[in-house]
Amino acid sequence: MDSIPLTLDDLAQARARIPAEALGTPLWRNDVLSRDFGLPIHFKLENLQPTGSFKLRGASHKIDRLLAAGRGQRGVIAASAGNHAQGVARAALVSGLPATVVMPVGAPLTKIEACRGLAAEVVLAGNNLEEAKLVAERLGDERGLDFVHPYDDWEVIAGQASIGLEIMETLPAANLIVVPLGGGGLISGVALAIKLQHPAVRIVGVQTETVAPFRRFLDDGSLEAVTPSAHTIADGIKVKAPGVLTRQVIARHVDAIVTVDDNAIAEAMVCLLERTRTIGEGAGVVALAALRKGRVLPRPDDCVVLLISGGNADMTLVGRSIDYGLASSGRLMSLAVTIPDSPGRLAGLLGVVAEHGMNVRHVEHRRGELHVAVGMTEIILQIETRDLAHQQELLEHFAAQGLAARNLLATR
Amino acid sequence: MDSIPLTLDDLAQARARIPAEALGTPLWRNDVLSRDFGLPIHFKLENLQPTGSFKLRGASHKIDRLLAAGRGQRGVIAASAGNHAQGVARAALVSGLPATVVMPVGAPLTKIEACRGLAAEVVLAGNNLEEAKLVAERLGDERGLDFVHPYDDWEVIAGQASIGLEIMETLPAANLIVVPLGGGGLISGVALAIKLQHPAVRIVGVQTETVAPFRRFLDDGSLEAVTPSAHTIADGIKVKAPGVLTRQVIARHVDAIVTVDDNAIAEAMVCLLERTRTIGEGAGVVALAALRKGRVLPRPDDCVVLLISGGNADMTLVGRSIDYGLASSGRLMSLAVTIPDSPGRLAGLLGVVAEHGMNVRHVEHRRGELHVAVGMTEIILQIETRDLAHQQELLEHFAAQGLAARNLLATR
Repeated sequence: MDSIPLTLDDLAQARARIPAEALGTPLWRNDVLSRDFGLPIHFKLENLQPTGSFKLRGASHKIDRLLAAGRGQRGVIAASAGNHAQGVARAALVSGLPATVVMPVGAPLTKIEACRGLAAEVVLAGNNLEEAKLVAERLGDERGLDFVHPYDDWEVIAGQASIGLEIMETLPAANLIVVPLGGGGLISGVALAIKLQHPAVRIVGVQTETVAPFRRFLDDGSLEAVTPSAHTIADGIKVKAPGVLTRQVIARHVDAIVTVDDNAIAEAMVCLLERTRTIGEGAGVVALAALRKGRVLPRPDDCVVLLISGGNADMTLVGRSIDYGLASSGRLMSLAVTIPDSPGRLAGLLGVVAEHGMNVRHVEHRRGELHVAVGMTEIILQIETRDLAHQQELLEHFAAQGLAARNLLATR
Repeated sequence: MDSIPLTLDDLAQARARIPAEALGTPLWRNDVLSRDFGLPIHFKLENLQPTGSFKLRGASHKIDRLLAAGRGQRGVIAASAGNHAQGVARAALVSGLPATVVMPVGAPLTKIEACRGLAAEVVLAGNNLEEAKLVAERLGDERGLDFVHPYDDWEVIAGQASIGLEIMETLPAANLIVVPLGGGGLISGVALAIKLQHPAVRIVGVQTETVAPFRRFLDDGSLEAVTPSAHTIADGIKVKAPGVLTRQVIARHVDAIVTVDDNAIAEAMVCLLERTRTIGEGAGVVALAALRKGRVLPRPDDCVVLLISGGNADMTLVGRSIDYGLASSGRLMSLAVTIPDSPGRLAGLLGVVAEHGMNVRHVEHRRGELHVAVGMTEIILQIETRDLAHQQELLEHFAAQGLAARNLLATR
């Protein structure tokens, strides 16, 4: 029995109700990736939305529909520690409605400030998102505020669908669309918009390894339980309770679901930064991570779109992800080498590094530690390298000289 | 005597010769900055160019003119460790010409790889840019390659002028344009394009504190000598020898020249990331730094454009700048507090931090170091805070409790 109530016409109408500021994000072809993969690779950059993520589209449409139904005048309420909160806050502000956002205690200050900057009332309550949601529902009842669900709502899904409509209009050749998958609102909207017009276009969802309830969903319909303590840097798709509505769309219209780990995600953040000079948050770059790690395998005639869903990365996390991504892609190496503690040996060591065309970022000298024999000194070098093979070259050179060297940042 | 040979018509023709891919970068109004300053603030985002900087415009126009004059067939050559190299490499590639780029020994691997990725031959020679330039000129003579100067060339300047034409077309209300200033090619092009049409629009150039040859140029015509060892994170405008041609344009058409320090630049990098989700290199964000630090003071009716000239920041520098920017804007604090080494004291300390609404990022426990009395322990806390006043609150709270606390990241 078909219970998906949205038609292509509904989606077109939904798009027409969304303010222009939330529409028409850039769709850029990337030369370097296209060359590396031998086929056209594009980014759809929802991280360049005014609120830094696609959530503004769905929230704007939902609020438009509430107003059209004579509701929402007292305001709207949402529970979120991140992008949905900002989407609802801005959509409400644009519509002249008051917005209340419930965030779990301990939510990042920057996200709290961002919502306040959009004139939302921020309520800190609950120890996690599930508890915050209960508070939001109760507060909504008490105060007569309409609750805006982050994904499991047909009007929210219809709003996200505008992304799919834009992709096919701008790039009719697109035939493989890779989309981050958390609760499922984004992929449901995109898949509906595309499959209702072009059933042959493939849609792939990407989850983060540690939080992947949909891992086997397309094989056997099962939803995997998520460990309560599961951690990922892709917190935007760390959704333990997939939508009931979105599940129906995914079962019918999504072709494959794959996963990527945090390591791949950090590398993808660095790759996106270098390729587009834009920032993607962890959840935002999983499509790129999946392509880079061969989790998504395009066919030779594919025209690929990677949906970058958001860019609200915590700045301190960005800094750490950059180092992590550089190390894990073989671009940064922290090396401990033990050499005799005599004049000229350090200079010789640095000469070897220079001969390999590597940049030294940092040198540290260790003497008098218990693991370093008397008369020897341990040198810690932080070095910029081309790739893992380049690092291996240096390690082999040292080994041939009889020097003990180990890579302190080795990830595999 | 007027020796500036460019007319508005020349600039319009130059723009028409530049490939579409190098034109029409985004011009975005920013809500948060506009609200904070009480007037419209916009970014012109040249960091979103295909090569990550405005240099592509000038290089494209120069190569077009060489070809029109029957030259350049054997190829072009440039000396640069950065954006100009990539601009020339891509412009040559698009025109089907071979490009040679001379980079100083020790140039960042990512920049070398970027030029090779654009099919340029990379020659590593010279210990600094000045030496690399001599090599490039000699090589150019030997091999019959045409040298493309990074700024001191009317055809290059005419190419950069396309930015000024775009700004006034997209935003006719703009009346204060803030532009990074190194050799002067960018500001000369922009100033000509704007002043030849709208003499009342003000143009302000921004230099980096340690390399500011133009500091007093508009006052008394003097050029300040630059210390050979001068360091700045804005390496893209670390130009010791300002152009002879650009000087004429600056003297006639630039209204003010101001400077900013590395601290302000790192903060501006973080601000740009947070506000636009795009990355700016050090030199790229000096206009934003100047506005934030009150070096540029808009009038109440101003409509401001901050030109973000490039985004090719070294990723390891980005990571460090983020931490630096967070610390220097009061968003990150590293605190050493000495407390009695007894049960419950650490928990109490963390409770105080939580009461102030601060996030703890990292806790380190130090015992047995010589500066910590026996029976005491020193706790190092890395804490996310709202601003400098927020940090002060906590320090005063500890002082009232009689605890010795000091901010390890204090910058002022």
